[in-house]
Amino acid sequence: MATPPAETGPTSVESHLAEILAAIRPLPPVMSGLAETEGCVLAEDVTASTPLPSFDNSAMDGYAVQARDLEGATDAAPVTLPVTGEIAAGDTASYKVTPECCVRIMTGALLPAGADAVVPVELTDGGTSRVAFRQPVAPGAAIRRRGDDVAKGDVLLTAGTGIGSVELALLAAAGVGSALVRPRPRMAVISTGNELAEPGTPIIPGRIWESNSFMLAAAARQAGAVAHRHRISDDPAGVLAAIDEQLPRADLLVTTGGVSMGGEHDVVKAALAALGTVTFRKVAMQPGMPQGFGTVGPRQTPIFTLPGNPVSAYVSFQIFVRPALRSLQGLPPQRFSSLRAVLAGAVRSPQGRRSFLRGILDADEGTVTPLTGQASHQLGALAQANVLIIVPEQVVTMDVGDPAEVVRLP
Amino acid sequence: MATPPAETGPTSVESHLAEILAAIRPLPPVMSGLAETEGCVLAEDVTASTPLPSFDNSAMDGYAVQARDLEGATDAAPVTLPVTGEIAAGDTASYKVTPECCVRIMTGALLPAGADAVVPVELTDGGTSRVAFRQPVAPGAAIRRRGDDVAKGDVLLTAGTGIGSVELALLAAAGVGSALVRPRPRMAVISTGNELAEPGTPIIPGRIWESNSFMLAAAARQAGAVAHRHRISDDPAGVLAAIDEQLPRADLLVTTGGVSMGGEHDVVKAALAALGTVTFRKVAMQPGMPQGFGTVGPRQTPIFTLPGNPVSAYVSFQIFVRPALRSLQGLPPQRFSSLRAVLAGAVRSPQGRRSFLRGILDADEGTVTPLTGQASHQLGALAQANVLIIVPEQVVTMDVGDPAEVVRLP
Repeated sequence: MATPPAETGPTSVESHLAEILAAIRPLPPVMSGLAETEGCVLAEDVTASTPLPSFDNSAMDGYAVQARDLEGATDAAPVTLPVTGEIAAGDTASYKVTPECCVRIMTGALLPAGADAVVPVELTDGGTSRVAFRQPVAPGAAIRRRGDDVAKGDVLLTAGTGIGSVELALLAAAGVGSALVRPRPRMAVISTGNELAEPGTPIIPGRIWESNSFMLAAAARQAGAVAHRHRISDDPAGVLAAIDEQLPRADLLVTTGGVSMGGEHDVVKAALAALGTVTFRKVAMQPGMPQGFGTVGPRQTPIFTLPGNPVSAYVSFQIFVRPALRSLQGLPPQRFSSLRAVLAGAVRSPQGRRSFLRGILDADEGTVTPLTGQASHQLGALAQANVLIIVPEQVVTMDVGDPAEVVRLP
Repeated sequence: MATPPAETGPTSVESHLAEILAAIRPLPPVMSGLAETEGCVLAEDVTASTPLPSFDNSAMDGYAVQARDLEGATDAAPVTLPVTGEIAAGDTASYKVTPECCVRIMTGALLPAGADAVVPVELTDGGTSRVAFRQPVAPGAAIRRRGDDVAKGDVLLTAGTGIGSVELALLAAAGVGSALVRPRPRMAVISTGNELAEPGTPIIPGRIWESNSFMLAAAARQAGAVAHRHRISDDPAGVLAAIDEQLPRADLLVTTGGVSMGGEHDVVKAALAALGTVTFRKVAMQPGMPQGFGTVGPRQTPIFTLPGNPVSAYVSFQIFVRPALRSLQGLPPQRFSSLRAVLAGAVRSPQGRRSFLRGILDADEGTVTPLTGQASHQLGALAQANVLIIVPEQVVTMDVGDPAEVVRLP
């Protein structure tokens, strides 16, 4: 009779994640053109090489004046001044405001020498050769001073900042044409299984449509990665060939399937165990117990072997792969913040395993409803869920009204 | 003397947004291959053409048995059965379990005729020709029944659902090879101004680096659009030419700059006012008062003329353009939910205008700190902000300790 597989105690979720993160180094930074930094993470502080604004300019369309000239202006006795010039935004010529004169000026235009205030056109008669002012103006009014947004040498953005729309705008406004960033990680998903058929093609009993690679590639993109999907059949040589093929163009590899207890059918386990650089273990969680992690190839590329059940693969991605992708980007690995909600239905969980159950959070009510269909192949409930309900390892049942920890799904 | 510009009362934020949304029709749906539906919105309900799972299958690696054969099994008196076959996942051949026999079966493999339970390999001695069972098994154990996830004809996803990773997985698992979706809207950003220089190039006083088009294109992508940026100088003919050029490849146009009170310098206003299909108005908000919206071209493409100050442009995008992009996708226009937080600093707001001030929300403490640098050109504060603090039209000051409405920035 054959020997049953060796039983070792399962590893905790935290230990497994800690081992993963200890093996991940942030991607080497690359100097990227500004537009290409979107979605990347700064690898160094960026400081302002010039103040912002870089010159005193007008905050309004109006007239640049010397404030003391308007001191006595009233409705009854307006002050009328000759308009000696007009400065458009972008005009780089030299203009000057002399006493008892003024210059028409547009928003953003360079403040002329001699001027100490701008009067908005709405507060005047809008004249072109001469203009009447009916009220005084405070010195400094409607002027944006050089450096009032950012001083020269100020840190605009610190290393570790993710570049979104506003960060991009700040870099652009400061004239930054390129920046040293950690790029989006490239992730290859390899889905294994002789049972897998491409969606849209016919199947017969025994076969299923492949879904994991679509799901995980999309989840990786949502986490900021560049991802591509591959589907292969069950064959250890094929698994190794697919990995070899992806290694040059991936910073992280994910396989799904082929890692359970089926011996020679577990092609991923069989293929990678031989390399000796990937550890397979049980993790004390449900779904997602069979986990594998290690490195492959000349660059020691991290590889995750996720279970083939789609809900297991999804939960494993969120709990283990997503933090790894963030680490590759130089971001803190965890972004999910958990919150507490009151259970609107009872839940069960196996002793000694942390359960991640699919639920619907009603944030206004502070309640969470566990969904029907919690088995690891049941995508229907996952598609309805907006949170995972976490049931700790030592807890086997929780009742209606109990407070539960939940994490929002992205 | 010239006539001052006509003054009309400002329009409320709600009225302006309502006019915009009334003019927006969802994009025509297109049939897209599954992978291409990511980020799109379903234009019709998708129902399951087959139950999921589509056949009874094993939830574990183990042995398919007739449960009654193991009724008396104990540690002391195990039941040993011959193994008459082995079924791998993906195997589509016909197998049968006869009384007092069993068949080795892998996770996901088609349940053989005659079997009514699966015993996981961990609970056996793992034998290949004969296997010993030391406990009984309940009928139905470790079997996933046809349809236990999704029944044939069930609505998998409803019209209006955005396709993310899990939705993609559910469609894939149900064999859906293509779906009718509303595509990502294509948005062109045209930034105008003679003062604008490309980041990374040298400037002289009077000129600034262009930032709006980078910011708005990235914000649009974050909102699910496909966006491209363009920078042109101040010239009404150039504005119309740029719009004409973008019309065939944009579902929505955004210009920035050229819409204030500067007469002939307001090239966007000058160019579009002549068409008669774009309305320019003041909206009772700060920043972002000068707004323009209308339609252009043969397809009545919506166009927004946003102010040129970057903070004004950003706030205008979030308040007006983002809901329009969502409407084009067939999504409900508003997604931002506001929350209440206690002010950690005093704020001021002009009478009659709704202010959107930049602040930092401390969600744990429930407090919000207004940032220094609230002028509409000050990107530094915007880059630090995680919320906008909303000060209602009729309020001019709010004090430390006052509750304020805040909306999170994406």
